Amino acid sequence: MATLKDELTQRTEQFDHWATRRRYGPDGPNNRRLWVLACMDERLPVDEALGIRVDTPVGGGDAHCFRNAGGIVTEDAIRSAMLTCNFFGTREIVIVQHTQCGMLSANAKDLEAALRDKGVDPDNLTLDPTLPELKLDKGGFAKWIGMMDDVDVTCMKTVETFRNHPLIPKDVTVSGWVWEVETRRLRAPTQEAEARARTDVTSGQFGVKDKQPGRWS
Amino acid sequence: MATLKDELTQRTEQFDHWATRRRYGPDGPNNRRLWVLACMDERLPVDEALGIRVDTPVGGGDAHCFRNAGGIVTEDAIRSAMLTCNFFGTREIVIVQHTQCGMLSANAKDLEAALRDKGVDPDNLTLDPTLPELKLDKGGFAKWIGMMDDVDVTCMKTVETFRNHPLIPKDVTVSGWVWEVETRRLRAPTQEAEARARTDVTSGQFGVKDKQPGRWS
Amino acid sequence: MATLKDELTQRTEQFDHWATRRRYGPDGPNNRRLWVLACMDERLPVDEALGIRVDTPVGGGDAHCFRNAGGIVTEDAIRSAMLTCNFFGTREIVIVQHTQCGMLSANAKDLEAALRDKGVDPDNLTLDPTLPELKLDKGGFAKWIGMMDDVDVTCMKTVETFRNHPLIPKDVTVSGWVWEVETRRLRAPTQEAEARARTDVTSGQFGVKDKQPGRWS
Amino acid sequence: MATLKDELTQRTEQFDHWATRRRYGPDGPNNRRLWVLACMDERLPVDEALGIRVDTPVGGGDAHCFRNAGGIVTEDAIRSAMLTCNFFGTREIVIVQHTQCGMLSANAKDLEAALRDKGVDPDNLTLDPTLPELKLDKGGFAKWIGMMDDVDVTCMKTVETFRNHPLIPKDVTVSGWVWEVETRRLRAPTQEAEARARTDVTSGQFGVKDKQPGRWS
Amino acid sequence: MATLKDELTQRTEQFDHWATRRRYGPDGPNNRRLWVLACMDERLPVDEALGIRVDTPVGGGDAHCFRNAGGIVTEDAIRSAMLTCNFFGTREIVIVQHTQCGMLSANAKDLEAALRDKGVDPDNLTLDPTLPELKLDKGGFAKWIGMMDDVDVTCMKTVETFRNHPLIPKDVTVSGWVWEVETRRLRAPTQEAEARARTDVTSGQFGVKDKQPGRWS
Amino acid sequence: MATLKDELTQRTEQFDHWATRRRYGPDGPNNRRLWVLACMDERLPVDEALGIRVDTPVGGGDAHCFRNAGGIVTEDAIRSAMLTCNFFGTREIVIVQHTQCGMLSANAKDLEAALRDKGVDPDNLTLDPTLPELKLDKGGFAKWIGMMDDVDVTCMKTVETFRNHPLIPKDVTVSGWVWEVETRRLRAPTQEAEARARTDVTSGQFGVKDKQPGRWS
Amino acid sequence: MATLKDELTQRTEQFDHWATRRRYGPDGPNNRRLWVLACMDERLPVDEALGIRVDTPVGGGDAHCFRNAGGIVTEDAIRSAMLTCNFFGTREIVIVQHTQCGMLSANAKDLEAALRDKGVDPDNLTLDPTLPELKLDKGGFAKWIGMMDDVDVTCMKTVETFRNHPLIPKDVTVSGWVWEVETRRLRAPTQEAEARARTDVTSGQFGVKDKQPGRWS
Amino acid sequence: MATLKDELTQRTEQFDHWATRRRYGPDGPNNRRLWVLACMDERLPVDEALGIRVDTPVGGGDAHCFRNAGGIVTEDAIRSAMLTCNFFGTREIVIVQHTQCGMLSANAKDLEAALRDKGVDPDNLTLDPTLPELKLDKGGFAKWIGMMDDVDVTCMKTVETFRNHPLIPKDVTVSGWVWEVETRRLRAPTQEAEARARTDVTSGQFGVKDKQPGRWS
Repeated sequence: MATLKDELTQRTEQFDHWATRRRYGPDGPNNRRLWVLACMDERLPVDEALGIRVDTPVGGGDAHCFRNAGGIVTEDAIRSAMLTCNFFGTREIVIVQHTQCGMLSANAKDLEAALRDKGVDPDNLTLDPTLPELKLDKGGFAKWIGMMDDVDVTCMKTVETFRNHPLIPKDVTVSGWVWEVETRRLRAPTQEAEARARTDVTSGQFGVKDKQPGRWS
Repeated sequence: MATLKDELTQRTEQFDHWATRRRYGPDGPNNRRLWVLACMDERLPVDEALGIRVDTPVGGGDAHCFRNAGGIVTEDAIRSAMLTCNFFGTREIVIVQHTQCGMLSANAKDLEAALRDKGVDPDNLTLDPTLPELKLDKGGFAKWIGMMDDVDVTCMKTVETFRNHPLIPKDVTVSGWVWEVETRRLRAPTQEAEARARTDVTSGQFGVKDKQPGRWS
Repeated sequence: MATLKDELTQRTEQFDHWATRRRYGPDGPNNRRLWVLACMDERLPVDEALGIRVDTPVGGGDAHCFRNAGGIVTEDAIRSAMLTCNFFGTREIVIVQHTQCGMLSANAKDLEAALRDKGVDPDNLTLDPTLPELKLDKGGFAKWIGMMDDVDVTCMKTVETFRNHPLIPKDVTVSGWVWEVETRRLRAPTQEAEARARTDVTSGQFGVKDKQPGRWS
Repeated sequence: MATLKDELTQRTEQFDHWATRRRYGPDGPNNRRLWVLACMDERLPVDEALGIRVDTPVGGGDAHCFRNAGGIVTEDAIRSAMLTCNFFGTREIVIVQHTQCGMLSANAKDLEAALRDKGVDPDNLTLDPTLPELKLDKGGFAKWIGMMDDVDVTCMKTVETFRNHPLIPKDVTVSGWVWEVETRRLRAPTQEAEARARTDVTSGQFGVKDKQPGRWS
Repeated sequence: MATLKDELTQRTEQFDHWATRRRYGPDGPNNRRLWVLACMDERLPVDEALGIRVDTPVGGGDAHCFRNAGGIVTEDAIRSAMLTCNFFGTREIVIVQHTQCGMLSANAKDLEAALRDKGVDPDNLTLDPTLPELKLDKGGFAKWIGMMDDVDVTCMKTVETFRNHPLIPKDVTVSGWVWEVETRRLRAPTQEAEARARTDVTSGQFGVKDKQPGRWS
Repeated sequence: MATLKDELTQRTEQFDHWATRRRYGPDGPNNRRLWVLACMDERLPVDEALGIRVDTPVGGGDAHCFRNAGGIVTEDAIRSAMLTCNFFGTREIVIVQHTQCGMLSANAKDLEAALRDKGVDPDNLTLDPTLPELKLDKGGFAKWIGMMDDVDVTCMKTVETFRNHPLIPKDVTVSGWVWEVETRRLRAPTQEAEARARTDVTSGQFGVKDKQPGRWS
Repeated sequence: MATLKDELTQRTEQFDHWATRRRYGPDGPNNRRLWVLACMDERLPVDEALGIRVDTPVGGGDAHCFRNAGGIVTEDAIRSAMLTCNFFGTREIVIVQHTQCGMLSANAKDLEAALRDKGVDPDNLTLDPTLPELKLDKGGFAKWIGMMDDVDVTCMKTVETFRNHPLIPKDVTVSGWVWEVETRRLRAPTQEAEARARTDVTSGQFGVKDKQPGRWS
Repeated sequence: MATLKDELTQRTEQFDHWATRRRYGPDGPNNRRLWVLACMDERLPVDEALGIRVDTPVGGGDAHCFRNAGGIVTEDAIRSAMLTCNFFGTREIVIVQHTQCGMLSANAKDLEAALRDKGVDPDNLTLDPTLPELKLDKGGFAKWIGMMDDVDVTCMKTVETFRNHPLIPKDVTVSGWVWEVETRRLRAPTQEAEARARTDVTSGQFGVKDKQPGRWS
């Protein structure tokens, strides 16, 4: 029978390593060495969709999980993925977007107009006041909003952008997926009409008339 | 006794409204009319920390949850919050950063140097290839990485940035919080030495020598 | 305190009434006075789809549940519904068919041909050897098989047939529903392209070339 | 450690195969390659009686389950069994009838008379308006109703009819069973007085005076 | 807030009263003031059959439960019932016998013969060596064994014997019941052929040829 | 994969054997081939005390359980044990009496007097009216009641009586036990003062003055 | 609907108060304002014996619980009780000793002798090296060990000592209890032979010959 | 199959040994041969902190658990540890103190003054009236109270005191631990500023101005 002293020594060391794992850089990765990019929508249950457990208060934690409006590539997504892949031991990127996405529900030009009506001047904004060095070309606001024409196209384009980005190591595995809100299950992004037909994946299905400013197409 | 026909009619209508709620704009908000900004770290359990349920496959869904490296303000965070607050009925912003954050674990200048060693040229990068209109001033790369000196300062600065941003409506409630990884509980951000003392909140505690490029201070 | 004798007397009487409830005709109905017509497919969970409990070993039992290939009207379905509605106290009919139905997966004429290849002669069969009085016109075999072109059309036609049938009392409530196998939820039958688009509801989607023999159209 | 990409690829393929299994004909059978014929009565719990799980929303599904008034052979039962045995990979038929059956509770001739009293003319009915090619000889109505004299005899006769029917392949296993409502357990059908004595299995026990029109005897 | 002292004082007093309740005679009765007479057979679950809890290690305890071979009246049953009804506060008697009873499975005369074959001399036995004052008339042995012809008759006779016995107070409620082993439920004893038919209640059904020595008939 | 037919055949046969096990005599014993003699008191939990399950509605059933006032030997206990040991395959006898027994709580002579005061004439009673051949010598009534002086003595005497009785086969294992109501556990009967001291085992502890009529001493 | 900000503010304040409750002196008491003195033996389950929950990691915590060998009064017990009653809001003292206590299992003089045999010199020991000001008179060692003659006497004497001690406020409720290891329940301490008889409460019952050095008598 | 008699014999012997284990001295140790010294605070959950089960009503019981104000060494702690280590088979000592301890919350001199204000005369007290042989030097009262300057120092000093005490055998394993109330986890005591910084471990953090009377430093 080991002494209780031995048991307690081992237990306290394990917690310390978990709590401070970021100090160890690539030697303190999350459990699955995984970075997830997902839409921020409340109808996209990331853990259930992927069969993982993103975070837990003690001990678990399968992934770093980045979420934004759309689950699209942005400079912030690149920044976050760059950090985890280069400095925190991550080896795989999984991207999850979803059908019925709010990013399909309006034309970005109409949203820009609506903001102007509220008194906002999109051409004279500092997007991130903590980083004025980051500048958006005048006239780029509507495109910046990131509305989509087609979620499958956007998902595939997002995968491609990560695969080719100079800040992402070449040996990182990248895959993209679409969560179907209507069917509560996951599928690969596709342009095949049959596979997409069960779901709302284009802005046209939301009654949006014109094409979005050209970010993904 | 109502007929089963009546029961089934009501049930199917409720699901349809939930599945397509983004079409209704502000009339189809998430359950708590809430937008959360959190760090992507696996040691930050968002649901447990805030006592909410961010997402569920059917019916629930308390918040839109944005997560990035640090849980900091970025143009992407502003974009996502702008969308939900102006167009999807959200009325409250809650920001959660955490102690032991990887963003405290190195100096951004060292990270930039490490990437250069790997052959990356930070001065000639398109951060987001889908949005080349977004440009970073030369020399701004290290600052862009967003490493922190002090998580409490960063959290308070992040709250302030959202409160004052022209794209965020003035009547949105904004608050910021720090999840203590060491104690597994939430507290308000603070500069009081006593309240902070239980946790690692500065880059100095990670052995980082110099001050970060000045994004938050 | 009542005596145990009183309790036992009441309990044994209740079981007796349940066990022999068919003797009481309309005074011994099932719990919801309900008759369900459903497809026999293993991907159609009747209890879950309708939110009822069809049968239990003691005491429960919400419905008489008729199931056949397709969940379609047949002389047997009329016979069974006629019995429960006229003689066993049933007041509501609920019909459930489902997408991805095997009845869409082939053309009845091909099935007939396949049976002939196996040596069956459909024109000289007694369909039900216990009831030779029931005769099918020569050439009617393929139509008899009951394959569908469109499950929504079939479902609506099935509802209509029950509503108008002389053996079904006019005050019985009749409704029809489609279980979406792909989405695991119920919807009303419809011809609207949008509402049907998420699911496979026509034989065309199964690669069936020609129209079925005209039973439902 | 396999990548999450591999896991997700496998998982989505499995669901697709399940959801569309009827397309594969005999290669997409239900889990036990089983077809069940059962009475529609709410006192007959099919899953519990047979120790199987007929249907589930995802993945399970032991049997195709046909249910009608009595659990007897009809042209619809032959049609449904023919389809599953010849075209969907089914290899076993299990028939379950039950004691205390409503089909024993009246004489079919009295039921016919009662319908006539309500204004129905059984001799001039199209039983199935979607299939007018199916005709019942005049005077056959009472026999068509399918009331039984004896549930064990009916069950054994039903088994025999399936075994000998030209539309059912000869290598399909067929067995028949009686669920005793009074004892909540299953037994084989039998004519032995002792084995039957515990249950109500004849119309005489329901007070029915005359023999039914001769369908099963 | 009451002190813990008060709580502990009350709790210890309650246990003491329970543990020593027989000292209080009629003021320390069991919970339902009930005496049960039941057969000792392992297929008769007394608690479940009656919906009570006979005994528990602390606090509960609905009944005094007498069990013997058959659940029949004997001098010992009278003795035990006399004690609880006159001296321990019992006010109700419930008798439970059961179908398929071993007491129906042989003729007592054959059992006597079998014992003689083993060398036992029934005519020269002291039945209870602690009470030689209790004597059985010579020739009474087979009758003493207590085998039954008919469990329902025996049960009704047993009820009647308790109702009329001078040692049982007249205001005690007495009822008798039969547990059907075959159906796992309780019914009143009866001579009606229909109600009895589901179960084995006579020695004839066990193949016993002759009538038992006349104790119950 | 076995057919469902095979499974159902096996299952129904097993139930039949259980339900009718008394027909098989020694070949249909209870599960532990055990006969228990226990007091009828509600403070004696037989299953828990012995770690067995006396009876269950289907399948289980460890013992035949005889219970009377005191758990003492009587002619009825001998009769019941004789039947199970000689004719139903039982090979072990376990006797359980208990402390705090009501049989210690009064002197039998006082009980007799109390009954006389109520108008009962013990000298002119037929103890068991179904068996008038069983006669009690005049003056034997108080002894017949079976009150104890000492439960441990009684338990040991009861064991001895069964071991020596001509109706009990010599190879049956017999043991006796005392359930301590005060401590909720089992012990062997004993005369050692120390082992008995924790419990009330004599009539003296109940305030009974004189020795009982001499049945056990 | 309150904002999440309000909810989080309240929640964090509650935890802070709990974690730092000792700072508030009498305004931060434990939940029942209770101090327990108990023996350190593993057969004395304090929570279960008293029906309280002594400690929990967050939020609960009914008592300050002092445990030593015997659960007796010592200067340390007085010190601890003095602190909680005068400075931390405690208003009740509950003392729990137990039968079968090791403090009854030997004579203190024999223990002293055994230690001397091991080379210990009890007359020249500093009992507590951190408090050499605390001195034991020579010859007092055996008495200091605190062995008991009688646990009930000791318990009552312990209660009395606390009631009269100048460091314990007069309005504190004090009660004492004995946990019976043999019966697994609580009782008041007593000298009545009957109430004590079920348990081992004196050193004589452990075979100890002489009286202990006179601490409690 | 063993007889039930054998099973019961073994079971009763096991309980007897457990209940009386203190009689066997070193041969009847607790389950882990462990003695725990812990603070009496309700915020220190001993079982959870150490991953053991101190006590249970039957059978379990990992440790003898001594608790006092502070979890510090006292003559009582030495007495209790001496008994279990020398006479009851204990081989390991584990000491648990905790942060946020009330023993840090005031200066002992102020507590002494407060008691004097209430009319207590600390110089003329018999600390333990049952042991007047134990005397405290005049002026030692404040030091006796045992308030701490630093819980880690105190814990390490406590370990050292036990390791060196002549009454504790040299081969006993001794270790000390600090439960962090703020983080709800255990750590080793330490003087390293970083490891201690997360918690309140000194009286200075409680606002106490002067050093305590010198017991631990």
